[in-house]
Amino acid sequence: MGELRRLDRRLAFQGEIVDLYKDTVELPDGKIEEWDYVHHKKGGGACVVPVLPDGRILMIRQYRPAIGECCLELPAGCRDITDDGEYEDTAVTARRELQEETGYTSDSITFLCKIRTAIAWCNEFTDIYLARDVYRTGEQSLDEAEDIRVTPVHMEDILHDIRSGLQQDAKTVAGILAYLSSSDQ
Amino acid sequence: MGELRRLDRRLAFQGEIVDLYKDTVELPDGKIEEWDYVHHKKGGGACVVPVLPDGRILMIRQYRPAIGECCLELPAGCRDITDDGEYEDTAVTARRELQEETGYTSDSITFLCKIRTAIAWCNEFTDIYLARDVYRTGEQSLDEAEDIRVTPVHMEDILHDIRSGLQQDAKTVAGILAYLSSSDQ
Repeated sequence: MGELRRLDRRLAFQGEIVDLYKDTVELPDGKIEEWDYVHHKKGGGACVVPVLPDGRILMIRQYRPAIGECCLELPAGCRDITDDGEYEDTAVTARRELQEETGYTSDSITFLCKIRTAIAWCNEFTDIYLARDVYRTGEQSLDEAEDIRVTPVHMEDILHDIRSGLQQDAKTVAGILAYLSSSDQ
Repeated sequence: MGELRRLDRRLAFQGEIVDLYKDTVELPDGKIEEWDYVHHKKGGGACVVPVLPDGRILMIRQYRPAIGECCLELPAGCRDITDDGEYEDTAVTARRELQEETGYTSDSITFLCKIRTAIAWCNEFTDIYLARDVYRTGEQSLDEAEDIRVTPVHMEDILHDIRSGLQQDAKTVAGILAYLSSSDQ
């Protein structure tokens, strides 16, 4: 038996935020197959667990057209490109998205964990940060596509929703559980 | 300001495991845009956290052509369709994937949490289960595309890898942290 190998990759369809490629892979038994690969154009972004001084988590509620549901999530967004033409550090993304989506900031933003959303068929990743003792600095500054309500939530309520399967957003589940397991909690 | 609304969805490209759709959405300011929606044909599947009697986690190592890396992951797979033409319960998927990918089973498989991988642009979900006191029943029964090495790993090593950003697989990060935060750990 041989190894699973990728022999070729070619662009099949260009989307707005993702491109779809066809991978030619050789299976361990020598058979050749075509597999899908979805390439997120920005690669990914950052998510932040904003903790208020009283221990509640600052979450946002927004409608997600892709799944047709209103979701309670941690603030998050894609990386921007800097003046040098490079992607910004995801800690910068985390701080900006927290400010824009909630109007809050923090003097301490530290790395919690990184998730790749679907390693079987996609490159997308999200770096998740902890923002301690967040405080308000102004209003939200939403872009034209955003309609976001800021909602402080008690940790026990989020954990109940995760364990009952009600809270399903991968970055939110991973971020909240990573914060819970950290020495900061 | 209005609300974010999806006005239309049409198929743009058919892949092997995913289809790509174009959504027409109306932004809160009334502007119309085209957004991508990636539809995973099987909707999703199950992942399992297999705990050995000594507390180590039974993980698998496999090459992932999509991202070009060899990954250490929890066992997982897509739902099969039953004789009735319906998708099987994901608890059935979890038990089967554990058996096929590792040769182990458990007398106690219970729900931990559910993750939707990318709610901004995709429908895919993974139900994550805990399998207590797994025991060996036979050999792996891999399908032709699989080349998997079974690897028991100490919990503290997985946690180190999650916190350092080395372990990035979303289902593995969420599953391990959900198990850690459960009353079973």
